[in-house]
Amino acid sequence: MKRLKLGMVGGGYGAFIGGVHRIASRIDDRFELVAGALSSNADRAAKSAADLGIAPDRSYSDYSIMAKTEADRSDGIDVVSIVTPNHMHAAPVIAFLRAGVSVICDKPLCATLAEADEIARVVNSSSAHFVLTHNYTGYPLVRQARRMIANGELGVIRVAQIEYAQDWLAKSIENDGQKQAAWRTDPAKSGGGGAIGDIGTHAFNLLGFVTGLKTEALSADLHSFGEGRKVDDNAHILLRMQGGAKAMLWASQIAIGNENRVRLRIYGEKGGLEWDQENPNVMSLTAHGEARRILTCGGAGLGDSASDWTRIPSGHPEGYLEGFANIYSGVADLIEGKNKGELLPGIDEGLQGMLFIDTCLRSAENNGEWLSFAL
Amino acid sequence: MKRLKLGMVGGGYGAFIGGVHRIASRIDDRFELVAGALSSNADRAAKSAADLGIAPDRSYSDYSIMAKTEADRSDGIDVVSIVTPNHMHAAPVIAFLRAGVSVICDKPLCATLAEADEIARVVNSSSAHFVLTHNYTGYPLVRQARRMIANGELGVIRVAQIEYAQDWLAKSIENDGQKQAAWRTDPAKSGGGGAIGDIGTHAFNLLGFVTGLKTEALSADLHSFGEGRKVDDNAHILLRMQGGAKAMLWASQIAIGNENRVRLRIYGEKGGLEWDQENPNVMSLTAHGEARRILTCGGAGLGDSASDWTRIPSGHPEGYLEGFANIYSGVADLIEGKNKGELLPGIDEGLQGMLFIDTCLRSAENNGEWLSFAL
Amino acid sequence: MKRLKLGMVGGGYGAFIGGVHRIASRIDDRFELVAGALSSNADRAAKSAADLGIAPDRSYSDYSIMAKTEADRSDGIDVVSIVTPNHMHAAPVIAFLRAGVSVICDKPLCATLAEADEIARVVNSSSAHFVLTHNYTGYPLVRQARRMIANGELGVIRVAQIEYAQDWLAKSIENDGQKQAAWRTDPAKSGGGGAIGDIGTHAFNLLGFVTGLKTEALSADLHSFGEGRKVDDNAHILLRMQGGAKAMLWASQIAIGNENRVRLRIYGEKGGLEWDQENPNVMSLTAHGEARRILTCGGAGLGDSASDWTRIPSGHPEGYLEGFANIYSGVADLIEGKNKGELLPGIDEGLQGMLFIDTCLRSAENNGEWLSFAL
Amino acid sequence: MKRLKLGMVGGGYGAFIGGVHRIASRIDDRFELVAGALSSNADRAAKSAADLGIAPDRSYSDYSIMAKTEADRSDGIDVVSIVTPNHMHAAPVIAFLRAGVSVICDKPLCATLAEADEIARVVNSSSAHFVLTHNYTGYPLVRQARRMIANGELGVIRVAQIEYAQDWLAKSIENDGQKQAAWRTDPAKSGGGGAIGDIGTHAFNLLGFVTGLKTEALSADLHSFGEGRKVDDNAHILLRMQGGAKAMLWASQIAIGNENRVRLRIYGEKGGLEWDQENPNVMSLTAHGEARRILTCGGAGLGDSASDWTRIPSGHPEGYLEGFANIYSGVADLIEGKNKGELLPGIDEGLQGMLFIDTCLRSAENNGEWLSFAL
Repeated sequence: MKRLKLGMVGGGYGAFIGGVHRIASRIDDRFELVAGALSSNADRAAKSAADLGIAPDRSYSDYSIMAKTEADRSDGIDVVSIVTPNHMHAAPVIAFLRAGVSVICDKPLCATLAEADEIARVVNSSSAHFVLTHNYTGYPLVRQARRMIANGELGVIRVAQIEYAQDWLAKSIENDGQKQAAWRTDPAKSGGGGAIGDIGTHAFNLLGFVTGLKTEALSADLHSFGEGRKVDDNAHILLRMQGGAKAMLWASQIAIGNENRVRLRIYGEKGGLEWDQENPNVMSLTAHGEARRILTCGGAGLGDSASDWTRIPSGHPEGYLEGFANIYSGVADLIEGKNKGELLPGIDEGLQGMLFIDTCLRSAENNGEWLSFAL
Repeated sequence: MKRLKLGMVGGGYGAFIGGVHRIASRIDDRFELVAGALSSNADRAAKSAADLGIAPDRSYSDYSIMAKTEADRSDGIDVVSIVTPNHMHAAPVIAFLRAGVSVICDKPLCATLAEADEIARVVNSSSAHFVLTHNYTGYPLVRQARRMIANGELGVIRVAQIEYAQDWLAKSIENDGQKQAAWRTDPAKSGGGGAIGDIGTHAFNLLGFVTGLKTEALSADLHSFGEGRKVDDNAHILLRMQGGAKAMLWASQIAIGNENRVRLRIYGEKGGLEWDQENPNVMSLTAHGEARRILTCGGAGLGDSASDWTRIPSGHPEGYLEGFANIYSGVADLIEGKNKGELLPGIDEGLQGMLFIDTCLRSAENNGEWLSFAL
Repeated sequence: MKRLKLGMVGGGYGAFIGGVHRIASRIDDRFELVAGALSSNADRAAKSAADLGIAPDRSYSDYSIMAKTEADRSDGIDVVSIVTPNHMHAAPVIAFLRAGVSVICDKPLCATLAEADEIARVVNSSSAHFVLTHNYTGYPLVRQARRMIANGELGVIRVAQIEYAQDWLAKSIENDGQKQAAWRTDPAKSGGGGAIGDIGTHAFNLLGFVTGLKTEALSADLHSFGEGRKVDDNAHILLRMQGGAKAMLWASQIAIGNENRVRLRIYGEKGGLEWDQENPNVMSLTAHGEARRILTCGGAGLGDSASDWTRIPSGHPEGYLEGFANIYSGVADLIEGKNKGELLPGIDEGLQGMLFIDTCLRSAENNGEWLSFAL
Repeated sequence: MKRLKLGMVGGGYGAFIGGVHRIASRIDDRFELVAGALSSNADRAAKSAADLGIAPDRSYSDYSIMAKTEADRSDGIDVVSIVTPNHMHAAPVIAFLRAGVSVICDKPLCATLAEADEIARVVNSSSAHFVLTHNYTGYPLVRQARRMIANGELGVIRVAQIEYAQDWLAKSIENDGQKQAAWRTDPAKSGGGGAIGDIGTHAFNLLGFVTGLKTEALSADLHSFGEGRKVDDNAHILLRMQGGAKAMLWASQIAIGNENRVRLRIYGEKGGLEWDQENPNVMSLTAHGEARRILTCGGAGLGDSASDWTRIPSGHPEGYLEGFANIYSGVADLIEGKNKGELLPGIDEGLQGMLFIDTCLRSAENNGEWLSFAL
């Protein structure tokens, strides 16, 4: 067994998503964290690195030096995770790709469409891999849903109801020094979108991932309810999809009582399915004219099975971290050449997410005008 | 005890909603069905009447004769229920009101805005009462939700997600002689709207009933998925409400796996609540910063209580028929002068429903243009 | 149409179950309440009768006079409902049966085994009908479960977990003048059993009704947690059934958070099913090696169908009152000779319930000794 | 940061629980697997070790040599996980403890009471630590429940309903070569108990862990439904606890439709709580006279909080593996002297589990005689 060597940019003290990436990388034991530019503050970077067992000479405070140095080492990193705020994705992503290091990048891709285009150019001219952590696609039953739909079990898709509702921004806690809230509600750091960027892009990505359909047009009504807030915290979006399907997408960070409610409901001419991230090991599937069936991860009657992506038997719940780990293990497979990463979100999904944010903002500015959506 | 004398127009053999009205009228024992024009076919009318214990001389095949005759009898009916298809509401409603008989009318009000206006004029010039059976407002916890919001328990309302999803029209069963489907999908009988008229008006009515807010504008995307179907069977609607609240309304009759899923989710600055008609005796209420609470009909911790509208203790589920009966008992209270029918949907709700259908149709024809909505 | 003439003993002001019986009798419009001995206090009886529209000459304060008088009238009652406390069942039941009037009796049958034997003798020598309102057997999906098991869909039954949990007696409210609690916790009126009589008999009856199996032996651990309470308020019972099935039965009136939680879980060699009275329109059915299916009243995929006992389409929830009404409509069918009342609980079920109470009390007194149970 | 050095006995190819232990050990990055006797077959041991990145010189086929060798190395293991079948726990546990190596042992403790006593003697005379992986105690909300009860939030405990239901042994798959089933249903390897040992001990342990109460007596009805099966596959057990509480415990491996349903319901004089392992991030808590509250891991309103044992925010579900990891992280804290392992199951819990099995078997052999239960 050989573990891949992993680096990380961002993710020092007080960060949330960096820790998630690290746990995800360990669950299946295919990565070893050996280098990091965990903070742009050298002292913080060094202390965070020491805490994580990174050797002092592989703790950096400058990602570009890290990219160059690691690329030059014979035991340099195979892949780097970029877990900085949105506006600090583009530069390190490009630096590492140019250095030939594969990149795992947190979503959304970056802060502006211009940055996105530049990243795309670099990705497309690089032999290194690029994966975007739309981690909800790592849930076994989300993948199962995609497979069932691709197999035609729902028939032609007609309607999709996609939601991502939270309540942690119901009050304007960004004004009270909450760090996670502060950068997410600062247009300069988030990239202009609020809820649509932070969570709406996840919902939008899931819609495409599960249905296999592209969006053709959308109409958005965005609003900011938090006092003094500069970005949207509630988004009501209508979508028209390839093949005539219609979708509603709701993203909200002010819906009190919702912690992290990602919910998919997809209806085709032959059946419907429903899935809820807060209880992710069950999925409801109804074939027309039959009783509703409750599918479980690895459980009976699943046919072609979600157990490809589970570690323990049905009834032993796996969760968010294991779904995230499925992305990491997919990256390991991809780098090791075991498959082509068909299930992994990449640069196309990143571009679509950026375009989604941009189109929503423009539609909302034009009173919900339907805008076509094409990459 | 004196029971009110009830008549019925429509509701003969093979009808669905007429039977519901009759059960609802009996549950609290305040009505006695004594007259009917149950069918325009005299023979069918007579047989249906006999089955229901209506005396032969009070079985009519012509509602206008019934209105006149009953008004002239010293023991004539106090109130009549109109349970015909939409396009046959206006004429009997007007006839009975003009005869001084109070009217309980099934929803939606009628088939066209012109008819609606005429009905409204008659209602407003009549001393008889007019009640529209938006029966979902009769559910105890729906009324509880309205009361809580009126009391400010959720604070200023921000977002409402309203749904009414069914699947019985997933296939075009109207082509196979299914009577209920046939008139509902025939624009001449339904009034132009399909799902928006049949169930969307219920959802729209609930939105206003529970939040106490008027709609100011809406944008609609309507679609017909059933093969050869002439009216919408899926409606995606965005709404802007008084005071800045935003709403999404989804009405569908092709969402496989949904039998009769009416779902309300209302979020304010202080809390959120969620209710689902298919399990109607529980409601979830979350105050900001507190754990979710599960309120039950008549259950502990309800404060100002839904038990005003229940018959049996908490844990003994009441359902659709009892909710419908709450409308009927409200009518009895109103006619007997016990209250002013504050909770009962009336002509205003009827007009708003008709305007809702019309505005949705116009918006959809104009590619989802936001149209203002004002009575 | 001809309605059966119904009388009632008990059920005056302040009673709970009498009102339930009356609503149940009205829902399907096959009964007309025309006589009553609603209270043994003549004044209260008369006032209650007037409120219910009973003619003054058919309001009685003495059930034996009522039995005799009504039997003598050419328009006398066809059937009487006995809704008094347990210790006042036997005498009126016997009086009416002897007068040739059919009887609907609330459960449990009576207060003592001796009374039960006497009632049984009278029932067996009478041409009048006797039905016991184990009303939970009236729920469509409970009947569906019985039918499925009888059809062998679960195979040989192995294990049953039956529960009836409430919390309204968590405090000793009988000491504060709560009338419903007072007689139920007074051994002289309840018949010795507390929770086992009041609700345990329902659970025990359901076990037999649904599985079709007789109990062969039981071991009981009864306890009284309420301060100063003289009867059990929590019962833990193990049962051994015909054919080798094992069951656990839990009845509690002190389980805080449970309003009226009747829950059945039945497992056979081929499948398992689960049903919960607080959300009674769904039932879970799992065939071995297949995904769990959610059956709904009248819904898709039910095969041989619960819709025999529903009034409205699936997704329109019916509840406790409609289930109770199914018992009443069954009585109407029975009296009118439309069937033989195969689904209706009768004197055998009454005797078994009394024996259940007695056997539990004796087993508990003997430290849970397993006692054989045979009628 | 320094990781503890971990060894493992058992857990080679085809094993289930060994892999779970390894993932659990990695999640919080406090262990490094460096040695193993993964199989008693040297070849299999070596191959499994290589796959796991264990150096060849630290792969053993004999646990006693491993214990001695590792104890002698300056970089020897700090702790070893014993993940063999039940009848092969005692010898390696004793060998490692005698060598001064701390032990994490899978449950149940061992196969016989005699072995249990010997292990206990060694544990009590050793300075090394001993922890038993009753991993369900690692779920945050289970610990929260324990804390709430210890704080008196439910008042004096009255009733507990504990269940652990599975269905994977509904058919006698042990006869078809299913390895996991084979040893579990072989009395020589399982230790005499079937479901009571494999899963009943978990349920019994949870009962004590959450309520903080010792069991004083029990009565058991055990049965084997699988054709030709020699150990129980369904257990119905009544318990009497310290302070007068009563409990029902149901353990079954033949309850079709239950995958791994561990359910706790605890009722005290002041409130009740309910938790279900298959959706482990929510817990229901009802205070007397108040509405049911839904507590979530790390969620609002939890007061003294389960977030002590979570890694990610509420709404991001953690599962079985993270609960298991909480046991491992607890071991790391214990070995590093950060606390005294108050929450960790140890030798006492192991002995109680063995006594539970033995007492159940004896009670069942004596027709459910109540037997006192005291360590």
